Amino acid sequence: MRISGLNTPAALVDLDRLEANAAWALQRARELGVRLRPHVKTHKCLEIARIQCGGWPGPITVSTLAEARAFASEGFRDITYAVPLAPQRFGDAADLTRDLDRFRCLVDSEEAANALEAFGAVQGVRFAVLLKVDCGYHRAGVDPSGEEGPALAARMAASPHLDFAGVLTHAGQAYSARTRQEVLEAARAERDVLSGFAARLRDRGIEVREVSVGSTPTFAAADHLEGVTEARPGNYVFFDAFQAALDVCEPDRVAYSVLTTVVGCYPERACLVVDAGALALSKDPGAAHIRPDAGFGIPCDLEGRPLADLRVAALSQEHGRIEGPPGSVAAFPPGSRLRILPNHSCLSAACFDRLAAHRGGEVVAEWRTHRGW
Amino acid sequence: MRISGLNTPAALVDLDRLEANAAWALQRARELGVRLRPHVKTHKCLEIARIQCGGWPGPITVSTLAEARAFASEGFRDITYAVPLAPQRFGDAADLTRDLDRFRCLVDSEEAANALEAFGAVQGVRFAVLLKVDCGYHRAGVDPSGEEGPALAARMAASPHLDFAGVLTHAGQAYSARTRQEVLEAARAERDVLSGFAARLRDRGIEVREVSVGSTPTFAAADHLEGVTEARPGNYVFFDAFQAALDVCEPDRVAYSVLTTVVGCYPERACLVVDAGALALSKDPGAAHIRPDAGFGIPCDLEGRPLADLRVAALSQEHGRIEGPPGSVAAFPPGSRLRILPNHSCLSAACFDRLAAHRGGEVVAEWRTHRGW
Repeated sequence: MRISGLNTPAALVDLDRLEANAAWALQRARELGVRLRPHVKTHKCLEIARIQCGGWPGPITVSTLAEARAFASEGFRDITYAVPLAPQRFGDAADLTRDLDRFRCLVDSEEAANALEAFGAVQGVRFAVLLKVDCGYHRAGVDPSGEEGPALAARMAASPHLDFAGVLTHAGQAYSARTRQEVLEAARAERDVLSGFAARLRDRGIEVREVSVGSTPTFAAADHLEGVTEARPGNYVFFDAFQAALDVCEPDRVAYSVLTTVVGCYPERACLVVDAGALALSKDPGAAHIRPDAGFGIPCDLEGRPLADLRVAALSQEHGRIEGPPGSVAAFPPGSRLRILPNHSCLSAACFDRLAAHRGGEVVAEWRTHRGW
Repeated sequence: MRISGLNTPAALVDLDRLEANAAWALQRARELGVRLRPHVKTHKCLEIARIQCGGWPGPITVSTLAEARAFASEGFRDITYAVPLAPQRFGDAADLTRDLDRFRCLVDSEEAANALEAFGAVQGVRFAVLLKVDCGYHRAGVDPSGEEGPALAARMAASPHLDFAGVLTHAGQAYSARTRQEVLEAARAERDVLSGFAARLRDRGIEVREVSVGSTPTFAAADHLEGVTEARPGNYVFFDAFQAALDVCEPDRVAYSVLTTVVGCYPERACLVVDAGALALSKDPGAAHIRPDAGFGIPCDLEGRPLADLRVAALSQEHGRIEGPPGSVAAFPPGSRLRILPNHSCLSAACFDRLAAHRGGEVVAEWRTHRGW
């Protein structure tokens, strides 16, 4: 079936581009001398994770325990849950610790370490923990310059019920960058802050096996990753309009798009209405700090070529409003199909329970996503 | 089970508030002298639609044909699909036309009318159509002051393969209002533009059975609905932070919230991290034009009382960042539960495949949502 035969809105994955993106990251990780542990929250899809890992169920990063369980049940044996672990999830984390070769979770406070240790002691489970460090994003993690972090690492390393595996950070501030140089600075901060922190711990005699960094912009921009053991980028396998605005990729590397149908054509008002709204594209404003007028994605024709004079101006629940010159608008009467490169592939793909994988517009597979919590 | 026993993030429906909101709308429709045809896109849930219709599967509005099929299969016999119909959906629309007592779809161009008529002639189906009119939102619909609209209505009314049922509009501009007075003006425009347009059609001898308006703000604000036959509000059954900012409701009428768990507590950075991110709350900025600093919803305690000094400052995929004074933040260590009234209930509820209905914090039912397209 051609993609044009799909019900809309539909989530499309361009397999040629996806495989190229996956190969690029594997090669780049080799060159940088780090393990690649892709973050599967971008797609929540077993088949794509296998491609990212070079054809087998390799090490992955997840954002929910629902993802952890789904991937564990399909042979993924080495999973890091990269969100601080809430106490009511300790039981699930214990199950995953028992079931997998390696299940690691994050800790960034003494209270959490104490609670996890107490739970592990009662349950007879030794949790593998990574200390989350803040490298400037200020979302979570310990302050790398303070004394609290090393004290917490020492306390976990000495615990009989915790396996202190190392340190982890995420330079989410890269998404606030305006230039490739600013992305590079975020990448250097991510690497240098974390490897410096690991060195402080080693100076105190604490073994630090893992030094884990990760984001697609910093992975792409890093000049080197000395002192780092693994990288956890996720978005790269799809890329999106945000990454293109950050100059992390060219638009023609974006492997994910949303197929949509024109349901209203109004040349006199210089706009189209399409059936991809906020529930297909998400309301992520993308790189509005770089391109305030970018709208909610990049409209493309059915072959994936950007339509430079059209703009996704507004989204409501199931309606998308695309604006452009009357002549360009008139070229897409109701029933016409467009593809939209969303601002944020991860949030868009999570709107769908199926992804349609295609080569050159021919659908070759439909893959399930593992949504929910 | 208490709501505090649910996995998080979870979608909560306060049944007492929901029933009060449903009763309010039924009563208000009676007073205004119009039929209530609630828009089920807000919740996509059969049980809630029945409550809105006074206990039976009454007339409803849907935003997708997936909703239409799901509700039709459970006894809803009178459905309006309030999005312009794309040609590839004609077959599904024909099935629904055959199966239901009344299935109506929207047309707002001669091309669409011609195509639908031709399809109906071949299939032996007479489609019931509503002419979509633009009352100032400029998303879809014919210009009510021009000649195209009446010509299109006359053309459909004369067609043996179309049943011209009337006219429909949606004053989405109400969501751009800044004051209750501006909402009232949108309500008057919605009513007066549409009833005036219907009068123009009747002056030309065209029968106009239905004159359908709808949005929660305009339904709440309208001073009268003379000349209108039905109203299609949807959000009112939940309400949300956006409606509260528009002064359409008090925050204590909001019947929908997202239960979330604190996973990080950082008094020194004056913030909490919770496990409700963009995939639970949506990135809808809400009434940012009224309250630029409102953030992504209203944090509340487990009883639903707003925590006035906390603010949902940022959302990433699975993380929410709540900011507030260090003393207030410190009151919620990891494992604490909060409820968040989202900016836009419709977009948040659509993130979940189950809604947990509770009375006073006791879960009394878990209801399925019908997502997808």
